[in-house]
Amino acid sequence: MTPLPTPLTGVVPPVCTPLTPDNEVDVASLERLVDHLVGAGVDALFVLGSSSEAAYLPDGHRATVVSTVVRHVAGQLPVLAGAIDMTTLRVLDHVRAAAAAGAAGAVVTAPFYTRTHPAEIARHYRLVAERGGLPVLAYDLPVSVHTKLDPELVLELAGEGTLAGLKDSSGDDGALRRVILGTRARTGDAPSFSVLTGSELTVDSALAMGADGVVPGLGNVDPDGYVRLYRAARAGDWQRARAEQERLCALFRMVYVGSPARMGGSSASLGAFKAALHLRGVIAHPTTAAPQIPLSPEETEQVGKHLAAAGLL
Amino acid sequence: MTPLPTPLTGVVPPVCTPLTPDNEVDVASLERLVDHLVGAGVDALFVLGSSSEAAYLPDGHRATVVSTVVRHVAGQLPVLAGAIDMTTLRVLDHVRAAAAAGAAGAVVTAPFYTRTHPAEIARHYRLVAERGGLPVLAYDLPVSVHTKLDPELVLELAGEGTLAGLKDSSGDDGALRRVILGTRARTGDAPSFSVLTGSELTVDSALAMGADGVVPGLGNVDPDGYVRLYRAARAGDWQRARAEQERLCALFRMVYVGSPARMGGSSASLGAFKAALHLRGVIAHPTTAAPQIPLSPEETEQVGKHLAAAGLL
Amino acid sequence: MTPLPTPLTGVVPPVCTPLTPDNEVDVASLERLVDHLVGAGVDALFVLGSSSEAAYLPDGHRATVVSTVVRHVAGQLPVLAGAIDMTTLRVLDHVRAAAAAGAAGAVVTAPFYTRTHPAEIARHYRLVAERGGLPVLAYDLPVSVHTKLDPELVLELAGEGTLAGLKDSSGDDGALRRVILGTRARTGDAPSFSVLTGSELTVDSALAMGADGVVPGLGNVDPDGYVRLYRAARAGDWQRARAEQERLCALFRMVYVGSPARMGGSSASLGAFKAALHLRGVIAHPTTAAPQIPLSPEETEQVGKHLAAAGLL
Amino acid sequence: MTPLPTPLTGVVPPVCTPLTPDNEVDVASLERLVDHLVGAGVDALFVLGSSSEAAYLPDGHRATVVSTVVRHVAGQLPVLAGAIDMTTLRVLDHVRAAAAAGAAGAVVTAPFYTRTHPAEIARHYRLVAERGGLPVLAYDLPVSVHTKLDPELVLELAGEGTLAGLKDSSGDDGALRRVILGTRARTGDAPSFSVLTGSELTVDSALAMGADGVVPGLGNVDPDGYVRLYRAARAGDWQRARAEQERLCALFRMVYVGSPARMGGSSASLGAFKAALHLRGVIAHPTTAAPQIPLSPEETEQVGKHLAAAGLL
Repeated sequence: MTPLPTPLTGVVPPVCTPLTPDNEVDVASLERLVDHLVGAGVDALFVLGSSSEAAYLPDGHRATVVSTVVRHVAGQLPVLAGAIDMTTLRVLDHVRAAAAAGAAGAVVTAPFYTRTHPAEIARHYRLVAERGGLPVLAYDLPVSVHTKLDPELVLELAGEGTLAGLKDSSGDDGALRRVILGTRARTGDAPSFSVLTGSELTVDSALAMGADGVVPGLGNVDPDGYVRLYRAARAGDWQRARAEQERLCALFRMVYVGSPARMGGSSASLGAFKAALHLRGVIAHPTTAAPQIPLSPEETEQVGKHLAAAGLL
Repeated sequence: MTPLPTPLTGVVPPVCTPLTPDNEVDVASLERLVDHLVGAGVDALFVLGSSSEAAYLPDGHRATVVSTVVRHVAGQLPVLAGAIDMTTLRVLDHVRAAAAAGAAGAVVTAPFYTRTHPAEIARHYRLVAERGGLPVLAYDLPVSVHTKLDPELVLELAGEGTLAGLKDSSGDDGALRRVILGTRARTGDAPSFSVLTGSELTVDSALAMGADGVVPGLGNVDPDGYVRLYRAARAGDWQRARAEQERLCALFRMVYVGSPARMGGSSASLGAFKAALHLRGVIAHPTTAAPQIPLSPEETEQVGKHLAAAGLL
Repeated sequence: MTPLPTPLTGVVPPVCTPLTPDNEVDVASLERLVDHLVGAGVDALFVLGSSSEAAYLPDGHRATVVSTVVRHVAGQLPVLAGAIDMTTLRVLDHVRAAAAAGAAGAVVTAPFYTRTHPAEIARHYRLVAERGGLPVLAYDLPVSVHTKLDPELVLELAGEGTLAGLKDSSGDDGALRRVILGTRARTGDAPSFSVLTGSELTVDSALAMGADGVVPGLGNVDPDGYVRLYRAARAGDWQRARAEQERLCALFRMVYVGSPARMGGSSASLGAFKAALHLRGVIAHPTTAAPQIPLSPEETEQVGKHLAAAGLL
Repeated sequence: MTPLPTPLTGVVPPVCTPLTPDNEVDVASLERLVDHLVGAGVDALFVLGSSSEAAYLPDGHRATVVSTVVRHVAGQLPVLAGAIDMTTLRVLDHVRAAAAAGAAGAVVTAPFYTRTHPAEIARHYRLVAERGGLPVLAYDLPVSVHTKLDPELVLELAGEGTLAGLKDSSGDDGALRRVILGTRARTGDAPSFSVLTGSELTVDSALAMGADGVVPGLGNVDPDGYVRLYRAARAGDWQRARAEQERLCALFRMVYVGSPARMGGSSASLGAFKAALHLRGVIAHPTTAAPQIPLSPEETEQVGKHLAAAGLL
């Protein structure tokens, strides 16, 4: 396996999980998707995150995904794996499985489903880091976890070596900046803690603030766009970065195509990404996992219009 | 196995999961706890629910719990098993494992962690019921799931045969009553759908409204009390039921002993139940699963005082 | 004015505020509504609560409501007034206005809109009680206030004389019972603190637990029903109380008539109560205050069917 | 009065409301604060927002604030006034009072305390705009209102002329960008709708995205800093803007000085701003309105250290 760079930087797409119509992992499509992403020049891959429908995948599917992707990238890039589960011991099972399959790091949320406390969140991350055998990145996703990670707690866990990074999908860029500035204050010019934003619409901002990289769900659909955006930002060409970001903001509107009267937000956004990948010929089926509601043909057509407007069809 | 009565009635304690100090299932203690409950005259057992720390138990632990309890009750009582996980396919894995281990029914929440929709909740329950091989009871636990089950949806799923019952831990007794009255309107004198309350403090009320039974976490500590309460209510002796309930309300205050400045609500309430079972000599260790925070010796002493005041020490 | 009984007991309807089509207080209809309630034998009146659309009424409207009702009941019954506003000084203005207009007590929520803390909630109630010139009842309405009053805090404020009572519209009957039992433990046979439930569907249960009275929004529509229910419970005829309660549960289903696709929960429930009062000939217009969405003619017809089924048309 | 520019741009501090120890408006301090802000070169003033403790101020205080500030700025700058209340008719009372006192625009939240619906939010803004006599800016503050304004609804209300602008304190810079890009798509080079961010920590980002201005609570303490930041951004000197922003991020940490074990977030942040203004000699008392908890002397000393580190003492 390729070890986790310290810090991890660049474009790290959260890889969608292609499924067959009967909800099995479509391995051939997954390999094509990996090729599509690697070919665009991304810096690492993140499997089993929210965009991967990790919450919908049984352990067997999860194992297939990690081993398929690790084998297929064959050491070209590091592969991070989400270890999405409710509490410490369950998360540890996933982390160990990911380590055994060759993942370079684990992405872990605070406990959920249970009524928790900051002291329990800290203990959770410490136990997972000590016993899991992989570097741990905290995954801040309040819309799912129903707890926002406190920037001070993240910095404390970073400072003591428990956390190797943060994947921030909270949408709270003020809190993201607190972590970036706190990390810089601690480590100066020798950073090892990686701050990644999961917010597709504010990547140029996050990079301007000092974020190390980006984990964009929409990067499945248009990895080239995010790679161009990242490279423009790193080159200091903020005007070009902004123009690319605004193009991607327009493209992102595909996630509002699915009717909120008929389906939840996961169905709409994951359904749009998969419909787009299907329309672009990357994956064989646009199927999302049960119990999600599929896009209608009209909604899929709207996704196609967004692709066409972005020059991707 | 003992099949699920239609409807299931009576006292159905959600069985705590005794753990060793290193967080393995303490099988001997679990068997003693089952004896303690069965000996008190309960009507069924519910393993792998919230009071069982299901959210904290890896699949290996879960399997040990179901097989231990099913084997130990040896057909005297039906055993329900929680299938606590985020979405349909993951839940189905748990339901099938429980079915294979001899459980009589599965208790299933709405999807969580994901952003969901009523149509997805309905699809979830239908798929789990069709494919899992066990009767399904809906588990309404908004504090964990962050969705309240709509009484109309529950009644619709009951009417079509998808759901065999409801385990209502929402604390919303108005909504509970809507389900009870809706069920009675549909089935009249031949009810098959079972409405169980998980609210320890209002069991007499729920039974007076027409609930079929009760799933009290505190019933681990004092199963005799809940059996007396249930029998008094069934005998129409509401005054005695109320007196027993009020005694149990006083006992329940043990769950507020753990300091909210140091720990979350799960640690405090499960910690109190396990401390009480340990003090009563039923289980060997009061250990709760990681990352929960243990009660302090002073807090444990307070639990003891509550037991003594209730005549249980 | 009639002073507040200690404790206040019985049926205390939260009086709807009839409006003209241009959103002025319809004084004549309000007087008829008061007659309708007083004639049914209620024990006190509560104006400017949630069912009164207090959140929608400017101060001028509020003043008209209190003075109209106090004058019209002419000392036959005590009149409580809601003092619904965000924080202490604003609430105090409302409490003083209500005192000047002859109200017997003020009903006050925890601070809302601001980010608050239990110590601030306690300070809020203490200041309002010390400086407002009226007995204060706490109003627990988490759906609006976004804070649940902690039973222990309520008991502490009751014990020190800050609070004269609790109007519990939280729907959490376990917490309600904690307050009832805590009050009884403190005051024994000489209670002065009044515990009132605002949950229309579980009044028999709350009275069986020991609640002092009920504040049912649906009591505007069918005050006779709630008076019969209350009297049956006080007479110990729980079977008759339950039958009356179940009839009222069926009637309450009118609040689900308004389409959630078109309107919020306030529009639907207050719209149904006012449509029913209009259909019963008590008020001149079913108008709800801006920006609520009116019921459609078809929805109003459904309300009429609920009335007819309950024998109220 | 000075009319509202279309669009309003620049630094628009939400003016704190200095209070005497007995919670009256400290007019002399308020005038000094206005001088402090105007002298720094801000572009407009916003009174009666969250940082002004509007939720804590009775109507008499509110009237004093608007008339004092309008009179004191004497036409040099436009003055916006918050009209913070639960629903339409109450908000209209505040808007009309602000119009009569010479405010140039009203800042209005969605309905709160009530259970609402997007159609009701739209109707609310339309009625307030039609009948209030002032241009209306939407105030998006989910932490207080418990509803996030949908960017699509904001754009619809902007397009039809109902809204003159948005004051976004949601912290959701992805949604902010959707409004900015949607506005640009509609109005091109002749914008009239003003997008203002209320997020103190991401002002450089918001301006880079195309926001028109900023409403920083921390701007009370260091208006010069925000003016420099704004001017650097407008001059295209993003490196200097970022450096200024990072200095302000460090200063902002004063809001975490107040102990969350003793007080809520409003007490801590407003208490810190007022302590800082007091230490800088701008206002006579650091008093925050009841029922907020004051900072301790040690906490105030910490605020002083933040000021000193920023070169403001």
